[in-house]
Amino acid sequence: MKIAVAGYGNLGKAAVRAVLNSEADELVGVFSRRSAETLGAGENIRVFPFETIALFAEEIDVVLNCTGSAHDLPETTPFIASYFNVVDSFDTHAKIPEHFQSVNKAAVMSGKTAVISVGWDPGLFSLARIYMESVMPSCRTYTFWGRGVSQGHADAIRSIDGVLFAREYTIPAEEAKESLRKGRLLNLPQEKLHRRVCYVVEKDGADREKIREEIINMPEYFKGYETEVNFISLDDFLLEHKSMAHAGNVIALRKGDAGTDRLEFLLSSPSNPQITAGILLAYGKACVRMNRKNEFGCKTVFDVRPVDLFCGAKGKETELL
Amino acid sequence: MKIAVAGYGNLGKAAVRAVLNSEADELVGVFSRRSAETLGAGENIRVFPFETIALFAEEIDVVLNCTGSAHDLPETTPFIASYFNVVDSFDTHAKIPEHFQSVNKAAVMSGKTAVISVGWDPGLFSLARIYMESVMPSCRTYTFWGRGVSQGHADAIRSIDGVLFAREYTIPAEEAKESLRKGRLLNLPQEKLHRRVCYVVEKDGADREKIREEIINMPEYFKGYETEVNFISLDDFLLEHKSMAHAGNVIALRKGDAGTDRLEFLLSSPSNPQITAGILLAYGKACVRMNRKNEFGCKTVFDVRPVDLFCGAKGKETELL
Repeated sequence: MKIAVAGYGNLGKAAVRAVLNSEADELVGVFSRRSAETLGAGENIRVFPFETIALFAEEIDVVLNCTGSAHDLPETTPFIASYFNVVDSFDTHAKIPEHFQSVNKAAVMSGKTAVISVGWDPGLFSLARIYMESVMPSCRTYTFWGRGVSQGHADAIRSIDGVLFAREYTIPAEEAKESLRKGRLLNLPQEKLHRRVCYVVEKDGADREKIREEIINMPEYFKGYETEVNFISLDDFLLEHKSMAHAGNVIALRKGDAGTDRLEFLLSSPSNPQITAGILLAYGKACVRMNRKNEFGCKTVFDVRPVDLFCGAKGKETELL
Repeated sequence: MKIAVAGYGNLGKAAVRAVLNSEADELVGVFSRRSAETLGAGENIRVFPFETIALFAEEIDVVLNCTGSAHDLPETTPFIASYFNVVDSFDTHAKIPEHFQSVNKAAVMSGKTAVISVGWDPGLFSLARIYMESVMPSCRTYTFWGRGVSQGHADAIRSIDGVLFAREYTIPAEEAKESLRKGRLLNLPQEKLHRRVCYVVEKDGADREKIREEIINMPEYFKGYETEVNFISLDDFLLEHKSMAHAGNVIALRKGDAGTDRLEFLLSSPSNPQITAGILLAYGKACVRMNRKNEFGCKTVFDVRPVDLFCGAKGKETELL
């Protein structure tokens, strides 16, 4: 398939790698608001201005939209869906219904297919949750994130006055996880299943105690969590906090007549962008297959049949049964 | 929904419990070749002769077909599909395409929907494999079964001359599993990932050494595996080998540019029939939803959208994203 990548941040770069590593697919190019020179994408990768994407109608089967999540996707995905099949990794949970509506409107009008909120959470973890809740309707599902970096939490810290750089590690409560694995149901809110460790580089003369207070009391992001704030030098920040590793688990327990059933899904990756890009590419190709069957409009991972996601030869999926 | 259960072995009993435990569903009754008196299903459960099932056309939304796998399902599922939506747990891997064809023919003719080979493997583990292979196309997938009882292997032992009762425990190689969890790819065939421990009650005067030889050399079932055969008394057999617990893992590793990604799906249940019945019920209800959308014919778990499997209120699935 002919695949374009929009945006060239960490995820966009990983998406380009994923397409180049896939023998069955061809990279049309990268569409970015930045100039080819600034991007440094390498000589063999064509870079085009984002605004010109509509001119490539005949040349693109699907666009992997890797423009920044919190701000850009609500505009860029509906725009792209007006011309192309598209996937994104929109992850602002509360705004998914709204995003769905605007992407759906665009995709229905253009006769294209979009899948939004693709990645590992939302994405693979959402799938784990829906399958577990479906086959064990009375179960309780627990989601653990980490140990890994949360870009959203780092962004939230950076928005505080006096902060230059920030990094946040989400760390799951291993004891809670082990209790669940022994079949013991827990009555703990999500905040008690994780703690948050932050590394902050402050601006010259900034008030550390004030920054710390603002962080630990920030609603939704930190309030209620056990939060550790460390102030470090810029040198240490650049040296010691480069890892993009992430991990997580979804664990479901169901007390049945014969005892407690447990299902668990687990992910571990040295590179959050690498694993997310692979998932985006797979769902991008699913978009194209669904579009060819006239399944237009906006979808989530819940609407995609596993058979439409599978990239192997037709009929080969029977071997995986 | 109005649900009927065909067959009343371990799985049929668990399916009846699953339907009775589900507030949204109604148990029409059990259809069995055995008489109501022999079944001992309890007073509040209606039992009908299997052959009369066609007379209940107006009263049943879907049939959970729990008649014995190896021999009965190839006949009973197409028969039931001629009249009703139906799910089964057909697990003879090599014969799935053939079974699919005959069920599909019946279901297309009757305008009904069938899902075959539902359970945990084939079933949830098949889903784990197809999702993992889709989002990480160059990965290697490893399936571990156990520790748990394999009914198929016990049946195979029982077919040997001189054997009265038999039990087989499939035991996964924990060291191999741990190696994978550390990201080390293994180059071992499936047989080296498991060992098999058998408990046999022999008939009076049977030749133990001959039975042992026949077991460990049985192709497909035991040959190539590390196999331990223990001869025990009938009393010990009945006393110590009642557990129906089972477990298993699907582990996928993919060497990417940034390091090795790992996805794992894990199941652990004190009762194989209990967890399998829950999966059957969920896919049974999915059959009904797909049938209402005119999606007729035979399907596997790969053809069912997660949204059609979900039993919660419409729109509630967004919370699981």
